[in-house]
Amino acid sequence: MMDQLVIGGRSLQSRLFIGTGKYSADALIPEVVKKSGSEVITVALRRIDFNSPMGNVMDHIPSGMQLLPNTSGARNAQEAIRIARLAKAAGCGNWIKIEVISDNKYLLPDGYETIKATEVLAGEGFVVLPYISPDLMVAKHLVEVGAAAVMPLGAPIGSNRGLKTKELLRILIEEIALPVIVDAGIGKPSDACEAMEMGAAACLLNTAIASANQPELMAEAFGMAVAAGRKAYLAGLGRSEKYASSSSPLTGFLHN
Amino acid sequence: MMDQLVIGGRSLQSRLFIGTGKYSADALIPEVVKKSGSEVITVALRRIDFNSPMGNVMDHIPSGMQLLPNTSGARNAQEAIRIARLAKAAGCGNWIKIEVISDNKYLLPDGYETIKATEVLAGEGFVVLPYISPDLMVAKHLVEVGAAAVMPLGAPIGSNRGLKTKELLRILIEEIALPVIVDAGIGKPSDACEAMEMGAAACLLNTAIASANQPELMAEAFGMAVAAGRKAYLAGLGRSEKYASSSSPLTGFLHN
Amino acid sequence: MMDQLVIGGRSLQSRLFIGTGKYSADALIPEVVKKSGSEVITVALRRIDFNSPMGNVMDHIPSGMQLLPNTSGARNAQEAIRIARLAKAAGCGNWIKIEVISDNKYLLPDGYETIKATEVLAGEGFVVLPYISPDLMVAKHLVEVGAAAVMPLGAPIGSNRGLKTKELLRILIEEIALPVIVDAGIGKPSDACEAMEMGAAACLLNTAIASANQPELMAEAFGMAVAAGRKAYLAGLGRSEKYASSSSPLTGFLHN
Amino acid sequence: MMDQLVIGGRSLQSRLFIGTGKYSADALIPEVVKKSGSEVITVALRRIDFNSPMGNVMDHIPSGMQLLPNTSGARNAQEAIRIARLAKAAGCGNWIKIEVISDNKYLLPDGYETIKATEVLAGEGFVVLPYISPDLMVAKHLVEVGAAAVMPLGAPIGSNRGLKTKELLRILIEEIALPVIVDAGIGKPSDACEAMEMGAAACLLNTAIASANQPELMAEAFGMAVAAGRKAYLAGLGRSEKYASSSSPLTGFLHN
Repeated sequence: MMDQLVIGGRSLQSRLFIGTGKYSADALIPEVVKKSGSEVITVALRRIDFNSPMGNVMDHIPSGMQLLPNTSGARNAQEAIRIARLAKAAGCGNWIKIEVISDNKYLLPDGYETIKATEVLAGEGFVVLPYISPDLMVAKHLVEVGAAAVMPLGAPIGSNRGLKTKELLRILIEEIALPVIVDAGIGKPSDACEAMEMGAAACLLNTAIASANQPELMAEAFGMAVAAGRKAYLAGLGRSEKYASSSSPLTGFLHN
Repeated sequence: MMDQLVIGGRSLQSRLFIGTGKYSADALIPEVVKKSGSEVITVALRRIDFNSPMGNVMDHIPSGMQLLPNTSGARNAQEAIRIARLAKAAGCGNWIKIEVISDNKYLLPDGYETIKATEVLAGEGFVVLPYISPDLMVAKHLVEVGAAAVMPLGAPIGSNRGLKTKELLRILIEEIALPVIVDAGIGKPSDACEAMEMGAAACLLNTAIASANQPELMAEAFGMAVAAGRKAYLAGLGRSEKYASSSSPLTGFLHN
Repeated sequence: MMDQLVIGGRSLQSRLFIGTGKYSADALIPEVVKKSGSEVITVALRRIDFNSPMGNVMDHIPSGMQLLPNTSGARNAQEAIRIARLAKAAGCGNWIKIEVISDNKYLLPDGYETIKATEVLAGEGFVVLPYISPDLMVAKHLVEVGAAAVMPLGAPIGSNRGLKTKELLRILIEEIALPVIVDAGIGKPSDACEAMEMGAAACLLNTAIASANQPELMAEAFGMAVAAGRKAYLAGLGRSEKYASSSSPLTGFLHN
Repeated sequence: MMDQLVIGGRSLQSRLFIGTGKYSADALIPEVVKKSGSEVITVALRRIDFNSPMGNVMDHIPSGMQLLPNTSGARNAQEAIRIARLAKAAGCGNWIKIEVISDNKYLLPDGYETIKATEVLAGEGFVVLPYISPDLMVAKHLVEVGAAAVMPLGAPIGSNRGLKTKELLRILIEEIALPVIVDAGIGKPSDACEAMEMGAAACLLNTAIASANQPELMAEAFGMAVAAGRKAYLAGLGRSEKYASSSSPLTGFLHN
């Protein structure tokens, strides 16, 4: 029996979602996809040049990947909605990652505008994955208005700082019935592994792979770490103990 | 080109070392070995009953595994040396993990006695892997007296508490020319993954697998996590940043 | 020159705000106030029995304290507004701590309803201190609608878990022009001290004192720790270094 | 009844020990001493120029302070012993802090040489306070050979990195009957406060004060933080909880 993640009716084997930004060359993307095993890839609509006969980031995304266009650049719900519709019209499918950001320094999302955009787009049949702060009430509202998952941040976008919001992520995973996908901040495979051990449904990351010295090898590392974390979650972690506990009885040898 | 760990002249593909204690049934061991991909397994000599025609833990260790007998139960150098010689005489080979412990609560090792035992056994041709506190000076002395690797603890044995000594492990990895194998305390695959990302040569763990609800699945998770951490180390982790950094330029879309 | 915190036109010497809940006996409150040095005390309006000739928590609050009634029990903006007005009408003054909570397990606040209540009450002349998740955009909206400070949580109310949201608190302190008062989750004086070192304007806590074995002594400890953290912030912390650095030159002694 | 620390027969009110190194000018020392409230001050013997009629660090140490000469610069037991005897002969009293360090990068102590020096000097009537790695077995040996306290490191000397060895410090505090004084690595008053909350008997620090923008103010902050941490330890910290816990009952108000 397979352990699959189902979002928007699509079954996914891999729980690693990746991005397309920051690569030294977009031509690296196919190998990164292959090595990571990822089946979902996000791309900023504004990076897609629909008129360009060449050099388009879309040319480097292997067919069969689930495209997850994002609304990067949107500063309010209206702009996010407009970008989502453009993406669909351009043939990018009906999945959309909502990013509504007006803070240019930490790129932190606006929960209220995100809820408004999600409500409208979910109503239009989009599979909506909103990027959010790890705020339980925002996540609850998103469940109500039809999100397909919630994507709380571990740390600011592109910071590679890791799971700095662990306390709040834990609560979201416990309280929200939708898949919780940790998005942003993950810097190392061990971060992604730990998110999965905590019960996250998936991880989305971009910078940690794109900024590695060898992105393809790092992609492979992340693919394995996410799968390892998921298996650990399913296998049931042992308890952590205050005192030591010997692997075998300490008496009865040499001393009797 | 393969990335192999060479210890005592033996090349190892897997950097996960496992133990044989605490399983609900020793018969689980072969499947744990297989799923983990591990090639090195430690066993307490006192658990081996050389006279028993059946029920011996040795019967469950697949042939081809590198056996790493340990001196668990030894309270000083002399006892450790005696156990090591018994192990060799009994056909367990010439690898030996030195454990000298007189603290029954936290099972913390005695560095001075460990150095003495290592010196003697290395002189007799043993491949000596000593279990130590993450103390730089003890590790330096062990290098001088002929250890094949050093095995500092992440947390007390069997505690599943994780890499609580990260600060000191980092220093050992930086300063010691021998392989640094994190032994004890690792509770989750993400812990093992992180140790490898830091540059540890390998991880040894037992309780985290044996105390899982599904040990075979947890063994697979650890095998993957250790490999992922090693790949991340080789791929070169990106820097962690204080501020956010967008995956694509924030200007020039919708707002121009 | 004094370092004072000014809120709603009132200058405060102490940056420790305390609560009135969970004490084994309300009669402990005067001594806790005295030992802590606190000048601001929060009380849930619903705990005040305005008809009771005795046994009222208000009887135990020393005169001269700045009363900070809170809207604990409110599940939306409207209820919070109603409670605030009741408090004012009852002679509790014009300071109000907004708590809008519909999550009964983690008691996490609803940012959107909190903004609505703050806007109305600030418009009516209240000095509004809203309890929030450490969400930058919510905090920015609160600045716009007239809050006097923002009170982000370190961890869930009453959990004593500490500064689990440090990453996000740091951003709020950096980006928000209002006083940032860490409220909820602080379990130890060292937590409060660290929040102050980071640049928080003040700390509010209740459970950590009320649940101590000796609340009066713990109150004194918190008063000192908050003051210490503030002084450290003003004194300018030294940099943290990767390598060691001797307190005095290592050469030229015994070895020359 | 006072809570005093007694070492070598001397009762101390303050549990903050300070150093004399790294100040921009030694003339700052008297004010730092005064503001910190410290009663014990360590000085490297090699920094003392017994022939100099002026400019000597000793001229800046207020009378009445307990002098704690240290053996900084010693690379083995013999050198440490020689320095200790020189200090005594020079009139520095019979307290001695043993530092035996041959690692010039992280300045980590040599436990074995430290034990040897301690044994000899304790036998000669010195009050011996050895600087050590947080290694339980080394600490146990030091108890046996007559140390007056043990001084485990929180992080490398002068690094300001904080309590990075918390796991091992906790064990020492629990298992060792002597006063455990955290020495080295403390960078912020909150670090010192936390060490005291854990049950440390005292803290010794130098760089964190000397490298602050305003050393006198930072000295005051540390004095308060150490006292706060001690009071918290005595007051008995409340338990940390997984879930939230309201400061007052959540029902019965507005909703009935």
